[in-house]
Amino acid sequence: MSSVKKVVLAYSGGLDTSVIAKWLQETYRCEVVTFTADIGQGEEVEPARAKAKALGIEEIYIDDLREEFVRDFVFPMFRANTIYEGEYLLGTSIARPLITKRMIEIANETGADAIAHGATGKGNDQVRFELGAYALKPGVKVIAPWREWDLNSREKLMAYCEEHNIPVDFSGGKKKSPYSMDANLLHISYEGGILEDPWAEAEEDMWRWSVSPESAPDEATYLELTFERGDVVAINDEAMSPATVLETLNKVGGANGVGRLDIVENRYVGMKSRGCYETPGGSIILKAHRAIESITLDREVAHLKDSLMPKYAEMIYNGYWWSPERKMLQTAIDESQCVVNGKVRVKLYKGSVSVVGRQSDDSLFDEKIATFEDDAGAYDQKDAEGFIKLNALRMRIAANKGRNLL
Amino acid sequence: MSSVKKVVLAYSGGLDTSVIAKWLQETYRCEVVTFTADIGQGEEVEPARAKAKALGIEEIYIDDLREEFVRDFVFPMFRANTIYEGEYLLGTSIARPLITKRMIEIANETGADAIAHGATGKGNDQVRFELGAYALKPGVKVIAPWREWDLNSREKLMAYCEEHNIPVDFSGGKKKSPYSMDANLLHISYEGGILEDPWAEAEEDMWRWSVSPESAPDEATYLELTFERGDVVAINDEAMSPATVLETLNKVGGANGVGRLDIVENRYVGMKSRGCYETPGGSIILKAHRAIESITLDREVAHLKDSLMPKYAEMIYNGYWWSPERKMLQTAIDESQCVVNGKVRVKLYKGSVSVVGRQSDDSLFDEKIATFEDDAGAYDQKDAEGFIKLNALRMRIAANKGRNLL
Amino acid sequence: MSSVKKVVLAYSGGLDTSVIAKWLQETYRCEVVTFTADIGQGEEVEPARAKAKALGIEEIYIDDLREEFVRDFVFPMFRANTIYEGEYLLGTSIARPLITKRMIEIANETGADAIAHGATGKGNDQVRFELGAYALKPGVKVIAPWREWDLNSREKLMAYCEEHNIPVDFSGGKKKSPYSMDANLLHISYEGGILEDPWAEAEEDMWRWSVSPESAPDEATYLELTFERGDVVAINDEAMSPATVLETLNKVGGANGVGRLDIVENRYVGMKSRGCYETPGGSIILKAHRAIESITLDREVAHLKDSLMPKYAEMIYNGYWWSPERKMLQTAIDESQCVVNGKVRVKLYKGSVSVVGRQSDDSLFDEKIATFEDDAGAYDQKDAEGFIKLNALRMRIAANKGRNLL
Amino acid sequence: MSSVKKVVLAYSGGLDTSVIAKWLQETYRCEVVTFTADIGQGEEVEPARAKAKALGIEEIYIDDLREEFVRDFVFPMFRANTIYEGEYLLGTSIARPLITKRMIEIANETGADAIAHGATGKGNDQVRFELGAYALKPGVKVIAPWREWDLNSREKLMAYCEEHNIPVDFSGGKKKSPYSMDANLLHISYEGGILEDPWAEAEEDMWRWSVSPESAPDEATYLELTFERGDVVAINDEAMSPATVLETLNKVGGANGVGRLDIVENRYVGMKSRGCYETPGGSIILKAHRAIESITLDREVAHLKDSLMPKYAEMIYNGYWWSPERKMLQTAIDESQCVVNGKVRVKLYKGSVSVVGRQSDDSLFDEKIATFEDDAGAYDQKDAEGFIKLNALRMRIAANKGRNLL
Repeated sequence: MSSVKKVVLAYSGGLDTSVIAKWLQETYRCEVVTFTADIGQGEEVEPARAKAKALGIEEIYIDDLREEFVRDFVFPMFRANTIYEGEYLLGTSIARPLITKRMIEIANETGADAIAHGATGKGNDQVRFELGAYALKPGVKVIAPWREWDLNSREKLMAYCEEHNIPVDFSGGKKKSPYSMDANLLHISYEGGILEDPWAEAEEDMWRWSVSPESAPDEATYLELTFERGDVVAINDEAMSPATVLETLNKVGGANGVGRLDIVENRYVGMKSRGCYETPGGSIILKAHRAIESITLDREVAHLKDSLMPKYAEMIYNGYWWSPERKMLQTAIDESQCVVNGKVRVKLYKGSVSVVGRQSDDSLFDEKIATFEDDAGAYDQKDAEGFIKLNALRMRIAANKGRNLL
Repeated sequence: MSSVKKVVLAYSGGLDTSVIAKWLQETYRCEVVTFTADIGQGEEVEPARAKAKALGIEEIYIDDLREEFVRDFVFPMFRANTIYEGEYLLGTSIARPLITKRMIEIANETGADAIAHGATGKGNDQVRFELGAYALKPGVKVIAPWREWDLNSREKLMAYCEEHNIPVDFSGGKKKSPYSMDANLLHISYEGGILEDPWAEAEEDMWRWSVSPESAPDEATYLELTFERGDVVAINDEAMSPATVLETLNKVGGANGVGRLDIVENRYVGMKSRGCYETPGGSIILKAHRAIESITLDREVAHLKDSLMPKYAEMIYNGYWWSPERKMLQTAIDESQCVVNGKVRVKLYKGSVSVVGRQSDDSLFDEKIATFEDDAGAYDQKDAEGFIKLNALRMRIAANKGRNLL
Repeated sequence: MSSVKKVVLAYSGGLDTSVIAKWLQETYRCEVVTFTADIGQGEEVEPARAKAKALGIEEIYIDDLREEFVRDFVFPMFRANTIYEGEYLLGTSIARPLITKRMIEIANETGADAIAHGATGKGNDQVRFELGAYALKPGVKVIAPWREWDLNSREKLMAYCEEHNIPVDFSGGKKKSPYSMDANLLHISYEGGILEDPWAEAEEDMWRWSVSPESAPDEATYLELTFERGDVVAINDEAMSPATVLETLNKVGGANGVGRLDIVENRYVGMKSRGCYETPGGSIILKAHRAIESITLDREVAHLKDSLMPKYAEMIYNGYWWSPERKMLQTAIDESQCVVNGKVRVKLYKGSVSVVGRQSDDSLFDEKIATFEDDAGAYDQKDAEGFIKLNALRMRIAANKGRNLL
Repeated sequence: MSSVKKVVLAYSGGLDTSVIAKWLQETYRCEVVTFTADIGQGEEVEPARAKAKALGIEEIYIDDLREEFVRDFVFPMFRANTIYEGEYLLGTSIARPLITKRMIEIANETGADAIAHGATGKGNDQVRFELGAYALKPGVKVIAPWREWDLNSREKLMAYCEEHNIPVDFSGGKKKSPYSMDANLLHISYEGGILEDPWAEAEEDMWRWSVSPESAPDEATYLELTFERGDVVAINDEAMSPATVLETLNKVGGANGVGRLDIVENRYVGMKSRGCYETPGGSIILKAHRAIESITLDREVAHLKDSLMPKYAEMIYNGYWWSPERKMLQTAIDESQCVVNGKVRVKLYKGSVSVVGRQSDDSLFDEKIATFEDDAGAYDQKDAEGFIKLNALRMRIAANKGRNLL
């Protein structure tokens, strides 16, 4: 057990991280600094203060990071139309780098030499926390209790609580959910329980943020989203801060049954896992962002972005937000967005998001050229012949030389 | 006007291609062979025979290509989860190479030295027809009347009909649609008309294959799709031919309002254009195929496929199906599919497709390892520490040398 | 013949472009502005003034663009380690966008509505000139005489000269080379003549910039190149301007037989062509740039750059320097170069360039960790086990499920 | 210490692996099977038999794998023109998967449940051995003594030898080289010693396979290499087996000073390391393979291969030869090579390899079209105008809408 003086703990105020706080004090004989962040998970963070105090913690950090989360992490990610493995909107992945950054800042402020988190040794989150921590503070010691201790069953955990006088109602009195969940302004996720059978359909009462499509209103909801440099800045012409944009879209989206997802994904640590996700606002933004890009982005820029996206998504999923390669790609993505301005009209209805209109002062859509009607010479159809002939030349030569494609 | 002896015309039996047949005879003083294919466009093809005869055509080809279309073109494309520009399922693009291949075969059989098509000089289809034709028969002469003649208004066309005794009811007596449409077993598309304003919402009565989500049944429909080597081979355990699979899914999907799409896309000839598409069956297959891959494909194979997909989609969209580079990519894609076997359960409801279960004898999902419960040592959580530390090493070294990522 | 008022001609002062100047005056009845640039082709540009005057030209532009060429075109390209098709250093390609940009500036200054160039209809250069021109001045008319006129043999050209009193010694009295050549500060190229047989070895007396390796000095020459942000800023500790750097390296490299290349390349217009190139300075910079990056760039940034390079090279080769996609990629490339500072020692000897040393204050090479000797705990070898085990996990699961890789 | 019954050891017959054999017997109390392979490292393998016997080994495997090595590993890799980080020909990386495969075969034949190797915990080789082992035999136990034991200095190793009666002349009586070396038919590598300073030039007497360029013959050597499906099958028209091809080229190349390389590379485990390499035959094959591809491969196939190559090289370098993603890529690469047939003429001279001619019955080089002379209408220069205009269209529209690229 290497020597640790002070450790910053990502502390939710719940039972597990309370046990961790105590365990750190006992095991490492070190000071513990707690850090609790509001990133839109939908639970009060202030109660964490009293709980931390009760554990004898002296340095307690509680931050509202919602605006920073959406502005500096969620929005930049959506500029790339980021999806992991064709489906997942990376709701958990994108919150980790922010939490890590703040933990390291607090470690630097408080003179802590270690950080600790409550992620297990099987998941992606440990990787995301720790890669970021090492990248931002290379000498930091990382403590991952779930990989170290032997409290690996609910019974042992409860016994530990009793032994150490940790009030079990730290769990908030709520019946323990059968699912492992994670929530922030972008999404809520579910894993474990019956989801461990990929053939089993998720139960309706699992979902917390959205009504079922069946229960959604019978009439569609229309929204107009205004984009500036690739980010949503107004809804129905009302300007809003980044976090308010996402909150608003979550509300409207969830009410229309939008944003549910049920997938099996490939974890960075090498296994497949089943997850269910609700991402109402994100699902709307993704669709609308593609639509505003469709009229404002140059074709080759759009295709280049599409070809880079899977790599970019992989970086975020695997925990490399704080890396020079993500930064390099981000520079290119951001550069492309200076023209991504305008308005998109979407229709939400019983679980689906459809784009029904888009307009922009930066539009490259040219009615005069695209029209099926007479274009008054804007486009010379004869050009197409040469275009095709030279594009075909290499294949004609090959066929003449006897190459056969059939 | 270069000399042409005999030309194979892609002939729908409609007014436009009938005019073309006559115009070819007049302009090139050559024999015309008509070729009409059933690729699932939903119209009888046999009537084209009488119409062609009426135009004095002697060599008339009418083929049912539905099975070949789905088996050799649609299914191979879906193995790659192909989407163009994040949205478009390439319904028009994928039919062109089949038609071209058959035209060239007919040209070879009949000794024709030219082919002709009814695509305009502004669109992608001319490119797809002609690139394929040159690749398969390098010396072929291609005639694209819309790029050559001066019949560029409905009035002139009608005048030509009258002058040449072409019965105007060749148009089938149907009121001319305000949209330019194209249909085959995979989709039906709409362009032109009010769609030329990207802000205008498509009118409900434009859509032909699907009911509106609002009119779809209030109860969800569940389907089980069985995959073999990446292709759907059975629905609800009933084995079906490729074309029957697609027909069946179109019917069920359309009845549930599934598969509508409204986008602005980038044409290969350089302009943006608005298109609306209905692809009910394809939308279901795409979603289900990703799901069966999610449990059967290795992670890195899946990611490699994702990174290649945009390029592959571009090849098909731009008309390079008959090219050595598409063939090269296809080899790799097909190789990956030998393990993509199993069953996916999907839910269709008022416009949306959701995956709710997947199972496979080739599944790589390992419950014993993925579980949140005790895994009996299947996975050693301590391995994660070394994994993370070495993955972080390059960034720790950089940070130690003063590199700053913030 | 569309109406043209004034045309800017890329004018070398040689016979061909003099004929073009006259032909433009005659054919288009328009004013001609000549533009002659020194981009390091190694010939005086001032004589072009008198020749242009003799042709009756009134607006004559002669510019020394050597510094701009290297600073804003050659160096940015080398930051990406750009090579086309594994071999070609893009010497011709990279000069075209600069000439185009200047032509368009002159067109804007002089109120010209057209530009003209002397490139043939078979090559890449026409594409590079014209794509750039359309991108920078979308309404410009482009005149490419070699695609229009019928002076397609040397005899006809000579007859035209005689008829129009163009002094044949405009060719400079030099015996017409059997090769088609192009030169600028980055390279000199040869095409045509016996090179049209890809099996024939180039004759020794073709090469103009470099001695043969056999004739090079028997003793090696060592150089130290200093890089700042990816560009060479000093040679043997002597600070130099970009153009001077390249001139100097051309001289030393050429004297050591460095930089000859003989390839068959794929032109954008669809054919293969044989070309020989001399790029002494460029060959040295490319090698040294990779070496300075090898100690200063993060691994994943380096690999990302490598994966983007072929696409970037294609853009430049095909003529898309002036495009939003090239600009987007350049942003990312340039971002990566802020740490590419330091010094590289190279050895030139009879045709080869070898790197023998590299050092940098921004080096990420960590002797303490890399050493085969005792590293005092800088690296924990035990971490490797977990690293490998988790990286292997997906393949172990697959093998356990019966997948066979042999 | 988990229980091991029998372990297959990669045994060179040298001192280190002899110590490992003894240490395995002592530490794991298990049977040891030795496996010694001739992969062209240039040392007798038969002497390993007596040494193994002296250590009490009963199951001794000695195999000549040279042909398999070149045929199934080196040649497939060269089909992709594989280079890691722009320079390294992967000589060490490509030998590991073969050794691993054979070790696993022997483990299966002898009923061994473990393998052991002599690679250190800092390098790439441990990763390559172990990833392959886990992929081919998922339940195998891997023992990496250098990560486990405390014999981490030469002194301790010697003490161990004395204590256990291991004759020190197992080291072959040769003076211990200051470098860590690895050799096989493809290359010999050097690390450590003064190379740990990246600024220090390698000493001339380090290099073992090649003469210095300065000492190479004053007259160039010309070779003709014949390719079939991408592999060299004959030299100067003499048919040869794969291993003989490589041996022959190593000899001729080395005699001409060809194939030396001095780089800093990025290891998979996260550090940078300096390495020097001699790859005479490989350097010739790489150059010649690109040349034969230049006349036989379609342009887009060649570019697709170039874009995939860095990823493919990374797979091999990182140890993923035995992976489904490498297999998937290989399928595509191999598919492309069926036309890569013909002959290349190269010139070797004092350290450099130059291509001077290439010919093929599958050549796509079309003299009639490429010629600067009159092409008798094979290519219509007027096609270029439409080709350029449509390629420029998107940029013209953008410029018309006010986009500025400068």
